[in-house]
Amino acid sequence: MYDEFELIERIATVFPTPEGVTLGIGDDCAILDPGRFDLVTTDTLVEGVHFRRDFSSPQDIGWKALASSLSDIAAMGGGPGAFFLNLTLGPNDDKTFVDGLLEGMRQAAEALTPNGFEVSVGGGDTTSTSGPTVVTVTLLGESSPAGPVTRSGAFPGDRIIVLGEMGIAAAGLAILKGEFEVNAADYPALIEAHRRPRPRVHEGALLGLLGVPSAMLDVSDGLAQDLQHILKRSGAGASIETHNLPRHPELLKFCEETGTDPLDWMLSGGEDFELIIVAPPARMTKIWDLARRHEWNVYDIGEIRAQEEGLRILASDGTPITKDFKGYRHFA
Amino acid sequence: MYDEFELIERIATVFPTPEGVTLGIGDDCAILDPGRFDLVTTDTLVEGVHFRRDFSSPQDIGWKALASSLSDIAAMGGGPGAFFLNLTLGPNDDKTFVDGLLEGMRQAAEALTPNGFEVSVGGGDTTSTSGPTVVTVTLLGESSPAGPVTRSGAFPGDRIIVLGEMGIAAAGLAILKGEFEVNAADYPALIEAHRRPRPRVHEGALLGLLGVPSAMLDVSDGLAQDLQHILKRSGAGASIETHNLPRHPELLKFCEETGTDPLDWMLSGGEDFELIIVAPPARMTKIWDLARRHEWNVYDIGEIRAQEEGLRILASDGTPITKDFKGYRHFA
Repeated sequence: MYDEFELIERIATVFPTPEGVTLGIGDDCAILDPGRFDLVTTDTLVEGVHFRRDFSSPQDIGWKALASSLSDIAAMGGGPGAFFLNLTLGPNDDKTFVDGLLEGMRQAAEALTPNGFEVSVGGGDTTSTSGPTVVTVTLLGESSPAGPVTRSGAFPGDRIIVLGEMGIAAAGLAILKGEFEVNAADYPALIEAHRRPRPRVHEGALLGLLGVPSAMLDVSDGLAQDLQHILKRSGAGASIETHNLPRHPELLKFCEETGTDPLDWMLSGGEDFELIIVAPPARMTKIWDLARRHEWNVYDIGEIRAQEEGLRILASDGTPITKDFKGYRHFA
Repeated sequence: MYDEFELIERIATVFPTPEGVTLGIGDDCAILDPGRFDLVTTDTLVEGVHFRRDFSSPQDIGWKALASSLSDIAAMGGGPGAFFLNLTLGPNDDKTFVDGLLEGMRQAAEALTPNGFEVSVGGGDTTSTSGPTVVTVTLLGESSPAGPVTRSGAFPGDRIIVLGEMGIAAAGLAILKGEFEVNAADYPALIEAHRRPRPRVHEGALLGLLGVPSAMLDVSDGLAQDLQHILKRSGAGASIETHNLPRHPELLKFCEETGTDPLDWMLSGGEDFELIIVAPPARMTKIWDLARRHEWNVYDIGEIRAQEEGLRILASDGTPITKDFKGYRHFA
């Protein structure tokens, strides 16, 4: 086990003071370069709730802790910078665990962040607990010169685009939990999506820089539920054309084997950290251009509508699907 | 129990979006006014480690969670602003507990912050745990136009000043823990110092604004240990004249009844959140002026010396005290 000062020393060794931070670990406060950061997001992961040691390695847990905050900055169309790390360690969190956790964060910072963004630790707090381990990451970022992209800018007529895959992390977690009698080795992409989600850091920053989205968010609780955050804050409704939703081949195979409905996973599954982009039709060519150039998987899945239409989820023949999804209740 | 959305709603009701925050609770990130905040501090309190429900009310716990971060901003000579709140609630944290916690934070924000600083919530995260409750506060602040006061500016010849009382919170905690057979009702100030520490928010901001300290920090682990943080970062030594340390009358009475040494409490007791100010002799008249005008208790307790002299703790006759204190080891 690290004692407090060894642990702080260790964190400072793995994570040098980031750009934008004048004074990092070691004083009463960190000092930021004035005017550098204007975005703040904070996420807490709790053992037994957000991660399990029998499902994820310490490296996976560290990766995810940083990844979920990186995803929030991406969803604002901004770029990530300094983060603050609060580690509340349990009685069994030995040096191997802590080193793994920090290494996973370092890997996420290196693998997920686009060129030009240096993501590292500006400060934090280390404490102990008799209970489950708790990891909090508070990440600062900078919005693009075009301004931050919020959830409130969606306007009737805007298209709804999904960047990435839907529902695969949730299916991976269900496999790890043993909820279905399948062979986990048959579904490496689903398992990996749970263990090492890949937030769209580069994509979000680029979309923000080019001023493409009128609204944006990342999928953390499931498409049906998260989309409603945009609708509520924008005062709008939407229709989702389910036949255009991304269907990951492993997810289709999994659904066939388990007799489950792909729509359930795609609309209700959380923690994919993919982006929902809302953009006026006139900017759609920019999105197709970007997708072609950078080999993004983008799917045009629906339209923002007037508020009184609510959220309607449509079958391929255009009729509403009379089924409830997590966070979405069908009213016949 | 609050569900997640009720809890966020509740926090937003108690804490309106603070000044300096363009967009608070409800999006992927909070958006800050550019250039407003340049100080960041974060503190985690864990049930059973930093607080106990049989010693402190929910209000006391909330108070302390915010107070410890307010103290860090004060120690930089800055002013506090927006804070981010990560609540990890246990199975028994019902509405009464959560409402009390938030009310204690609101009381601290109102009672401790000087005119002109509005301290409120800019965002956060709410999670659950099967174990002890964990509360993290990440507080943003702004340094004074004279610049932030760090731990590294102490220079040989500077005076060391204590603002406030030393060791009384630790004595209060020892009483609550039943470590001594005394009547708790005889020591209301000691108990209160543990339950409701009063960080020097106004004093720190004013000292910073006037550019008085060359270095400053708040006492969280005990004077002997915390002072060494300044010495290490400043590359200096110090001598402490123990006869000038503040002797709270209740602490003296407590020491008499328990047969303990006041020096042990004053040098080793943490969590008083009082300030250690280091200032050149030429600025001492400013400190005496401020103390007189604002009725501060300040004590000139020693001098910064050359690094090779180390930290020496002196009796009233000028001879070194040959005794170890927490964080301080006497070398004869």
